[in-house]
Amino acid sequence: MQPGSTGKNRDHQLVLGSRKNLDLTGVKQVESFDSEEFLLETDMGFLSIRGHNLQMKNLDVEEGKVSIQGRIDDLVYLDQHHGEKSKGLFGKLFK
Amino acid sequence: MQPGSTGKNRDHQLVLGSRKNLDLTGVKQVESFDSEEFLLETDMGFLSIRGHNLQMKNLDVEEGKVSIQGRIDDLVYLDQHHGEKSKGLFGKLFK
Repeated sequence: MQPGSTGKNRDHQLVLGSRKNLDLTGVKQVESFDSEEFLLETDMGFLSIRGHNLQMKNLDVEEGKVSIQGRIDDLVYLDQHHGEKSKGLFGKLFK
Repeated sequence: MQPGSTGKNRDHQLVLGSRKNLDLTGVKQVESFDSEEFLLETDMGFLSIRGHNLQMKNLDVEEGKVSIQGRIDDLVYLDQHHGEKSKGLFGKLFK
């Protein structure tokens, strides 16, 4: 992860500190966001981030970087193959 | 996150690279795991990690570190509104 590397070809990485500071690279697009859910398109598929009091702290589309702050509850990759499954048991029980 | 800091008092951090290499700190205990789901107790609550072909690559309970490799589908903190896991299920039944 060199500072000089090209943003969009960089690997998708997700760093979550203390469940409240989330830094992402390899983000193609922010599809939508509000204080409880972010939907991002990443190099590795769509990523839904849910929590409370979520705020976008930084966005650099050119570099593919997004920083989010708040209380993170869950991070779910939404694949075509098992998009439904990922919202299954745990999503329902613990929502 | 200094290399020299003490393990169990370290902040809970989660680093996911390319959706397949997951490194965690601040892990108190591995409750259970198989190739599709890991259940960890972290400093910030229980964390369910689901995916495919999951393998434990490294475990250092003393330092509170766990490394997992595989295809990650979702990361869900389970203690959202209920203190304990069992309470959560119980609470849901009588809501």
